[in-house]
Amino acid sequence: MSRRIIGIDPGSRITGVGVIETDGQKVKHIFSRCIRLGERPLPERLGIIFAEITQLIRDWQPDEMSVEDVFVATNAGGALKLGQARGAAICAGVMMNLPIYEYSAKQVKQATVGKGAADKTQVQHMVKVLLNLQGQLQADTADALAVALCHAHTSHLNNRIAQAIKLTR
Amino acid sequence: MSRRIIGIDPGSRITGVGVIETDGQKVKHIFSRCIRLGERPLPERLGIIFAEITQLIRDWQPDEMSVEDVFVATNAGGALKLGQARGAAICAGVMMNLPIYEYSAKQVKQATVGKGAADKTQVQHMVKVLLNLQGQLQADTADALAVALCHAHTSHLNNRIAQAIKLTR
Repeated sequence: MSRRIIGIDPGSRITGVGVIETDGQKVKHIFSRCIRLGERPLPERLGIIFAEITQLIRDWQPDEMSVEDVFVATNAGGALKLGQARGAAICAGVMMNLPIYEYSAKQVKQATVGKGAADKTQVQHMVKVLLNLQGQLQADTADALAVALCHAHTSHLNNRIAQAIKLTR
Repeated sequence: MSRRIIGIDPGSRITGVGVIETDGQKVKHIFSRCIRLGERPLPERLGIIFAEITQLIRDWQPDEMSVEDVFVATNAGGALKLGQARGAAICAGVMMNLPIYEYSAKQVKQATVGKGAADKTQVQHMVKVLLNLQGQLQADTADALAVALCHAHTSHLNNRIAQAIKLTR
């Protein structure tokens, strides 16, 4: 049985989104794009991340969400901004009842290139090869597809970080 | 004309929420509580913050949201968690079309106690006095009411950080 995975590379300026389908053996590119947040005030950006991802989940009907475990920025201010973007993206998945999985950058590299120390361009190259994509691929979009591929390729029992929320109210 | 303000003190373990009403002269306590997130996985906590605040906005119909500008944690990991909680809370306000305002801890202290260097217990004491509350007040709930009071007391033209989102899709 095939399932669809939405991968997210959250960022407060650009958030990458990629949807793939896998039957357990083959993977297929379904949709990908990056959401450009521009220079708006941060809360507006968060609202756009949340609303756009919610709409993309409605449009593409993924079964699971995969998010890269954020590289912790060297400064707390950067981490705070990144955290807010990540919070908005994860909220969208949780509110749409998707189970959410997260993978470290190392796991993503291991699963796509075969070694945890691969550089970003190798990951982007392998995303194009694995999904049979032609032409330029925006870097954040490639990263979103990479974390989706990582989830497709990985035994995911250990990475599930959230059940769908059942609110008691 | 009176207006209602929802104040939020975001946190990944406890998020405080307080709703007050002001006619420009008097302030009145309408509702307050803290949302305890416990030891759940972080995405579940974010979903609960988002869903609970959304529901509280539906229940209490505030006109504006006021959020404390996060004290930047000394370590990036703490800032990331706090950022995610803040992102979830702000998303809820933005998606419910509330204009969002933010105030620094110093502004909150200035507006409630009258000096920016006041300590937390003084703020909590003044929240109780200003809103005529009896008995114990949970610390995060008091902080949420304090940031709502700060917004009620402050000329807020300079602090508006987001228009309601009008998505173009």
